[in-house]
Amino acid sequence: MPSPDDPVAPIAGRVQERIRALLDGHRATWIAEQPALAALFDALDGFVAAGGKRLRPAFCYWGAVAAGAGGDEPELLDTCAALELLHAFALIHDDVMDGSATRRGRPALHVRFASRHSASGWVGDSRRHGEGLAILAGDLAFVLADTLLDRAPPEAQRLWHELRVELVAGQWVDVVAAASTERSPALARWVGRYKSGRYTVERPLHLGAALAGDPRLCDAYSAFGEPLGEAFQLRDDLLGVFGDPSETGKPSGDDLREGKPTLLLALATSLAEPDDRGLIERVGSADLSDDDVTALRRAFHRCGARDMVEDEIVRLTTHAEQALADCDIDAVARHRLLSLARRAAVRDR
Amino acid sequence: MPSPDDPVAPIAGRVQERIRALLDGHRATWIAEQPALAALFDALDGFVAAGGKRLRPAFCYWGAVAAGAGGDEPELLDTCAALELLHAFALIHDDVMDGSATRRGRPALHVRFASRHSASGWVGDSRRHGEGLAILAGDLAFVLADTLLDRAPPEAQRLWHELRVELVAGQWVDVVAAASTERSPALARWVGRYKSGRYTVERPLHLGAALAGDPRLCDAYSAFGEPLGEAFQLRDDLLGVFGDPSETGKPSGDDLREGKPTLLLALATSLAEPDDRGLIERVGSADLSDDDVTALRRAFHRCGARDMVEDEIVRLTTHAEQALADCDIDAVARHRLLSLARRAAVRDR
Repeated sequence: MPSPDDPVAPIAGRVQERIRALLDGHRATWIAEQPALAALFDALDGFVAAGGKRLRPAFCYWGAVAAGAGGDEPELLDTCAALELLHAFALIHDDVMDGSATRRGRPALHVRFASRHSASGWVGDSRRHGEGLAILAGDLAFVLADTLLDRAPPEAQRLWHELRVELVAGQWVDVVAAASTERSPALARWVGRYKSGRYTVERPLHLGAALAGDPRLCDAYSAFGEPLGEAFQLRDDLLGVFGDPSETGKPSGDDLREGKPTLLLALATSLAEPDDRGLIERVGSADLSDDDVTALRRAFHRCGARDMVEDEIVRLTTHAEQALADCDIDAVARHRLLSLARRAAVRDR
Repeated sequence: MPSPDDPVAPIAGRVQERIRALLDGHRATWIAEQPALAALFDALDGFVAAGGKRLRPAFCYWGAVAAGAGGDEPELLDTCAALELLHAFALIHDDVMDGSATRRGRPALHVRFASRHSASGWVGDSRRHGEGLAILAGDLAFVLADTLLDRAPPEAQRLWHELRVELVAGQWVDVVAAASTERSPALARWVGRYKSGRYTVERPLHLGAALAGDPRLCDAYSAFGEPLGEAFQLRDDLLGVFGDPSETGKPSGDDLREGKPTLLLALATSLAEPDDRGLIERVGSADLSDDDVTALRRAFHRCGARDMVEDEIVRLTTHAEQALADCDIDAVARHRLLSLARRAAVRDR
């Protein structure tokens, strides 16, 4: 049983039901046309049901309630569900782009489709087949997310467009910076804000305000959401290197093999002790061994980069909490948003 | 100079300008944030400018004008531009999924990004890098297309959702049927209708009627658009095997190496002479040589499959033309739609 104070409880189950109902409706129509389409809808349903923190719907929900929404409005539920489906799209495509093997503790979608291809003795390249179907499953999540915004007011639709462009732009710079080994702290922070912080915290809050029809809180939500979104991504970066795969559902070390331009890496690049520099320069190479990853963890710790990122998370989160304290909203909503902030910034998965 | 009767002329240039203006607006904002984003917007702009038949905007335009639109409505232009951007999304993702090397006579987007990766001496896998950026460029086209529907009436937005789900579903079955070597004519026709026919002809016409605010023509547009959309895809299938790459902009033979479930292949599979059966069973394997492709062309011709597909195109197109003749629309619009129908069904590229 979730605690009555759980900030995700009022929305998590309803979001999953809404997504399931949406998928079931389409599934029934489409499998009558082509039985092969069952696997598409089942894959997306399974991906959403397999978990996730539901932070985006929760920020949207409390952002709306704090701005005067009742909480039961169908367009609010739809937008919360849209954010979760958009997140599914982003993760599915991201896993293809990064070649990640696992997600949410299970094989990534493209890996499962590739396995089915091999197991069925089908023709062609299994990897390409798996990636193709995963790209399409992500595309479907993207379209269906979009259909859920139909009843939202124009300002919410404008925000929805903006957050999707921000997400794509952030991912683009992430991929280019990883390949070109650009490791400035400023760039790392920009990427974190755009590829993740915005669509996880600030934009869901803005969407909530727009759905409640009260834009007055937007500036306050930015003052709270922008630093918190960045803290969220910095925590993700730390978990990508130091996290326990049984908690995060993702192998640790992948971010290092992909050379993700994180603040952690940027700081370590400039602070590393001479003996560790050679190893740190190899970040971004796929042939980093597990021992290399262990050695990198130690190097990041030894040079102080890990502590600096932890300190930065505390600084950003405190900043966010102060902004929320200055904000004219009711006590319950404030309490729930504070508790969401802690979940975003301090977590094991 | 296009002829005054050219059915694409009233809309092609305006669509390209509209897309360029949209991209330029976003480009200016985003490169001020991160110069690396210039390449994203430039790639999409170049892809759209490199050509294409602009059939989808033209069907939407004449579908609207025949239903009473003036032709200069901004939401009509926006929807026409959205269809062209959606088409860019579909082609860019399709080329990644199929591993196609060229498009519109130039290296495919993922190939160009992979080349830039190698030429710059960047770290990581060039292929994965190129594919990742192409997926993101496609995602951006998808979002931007969507922003262009903001001013469209609800019925147009509903159709927009539907056509995008149809496109994804059609592509999904295409990929699965190619891998599982399902070669029934019925399945091949279904795939052709959904992955391409619908969003090329029937749905753009429906969108035109919805934008003109006159749904009375929808049934007539289906009677015209459904067979014509299928004829369009059958022509594409023939061009994929028999077309001249300098005209189509795509290498011929790729459809055979990918084992695309076309009506041509389905018919050839059941009609082939005994000597050709072994070769036809190898369709779908990446190691088909150019000589194999030449031999397959001959086999498709010899067994009558090619002629049967040509006959089917004529039958479907005649059907479409008759439906249009029964349709209560003005003479100029009818003439332009007929001329578009010929362009869709009879073409070299």
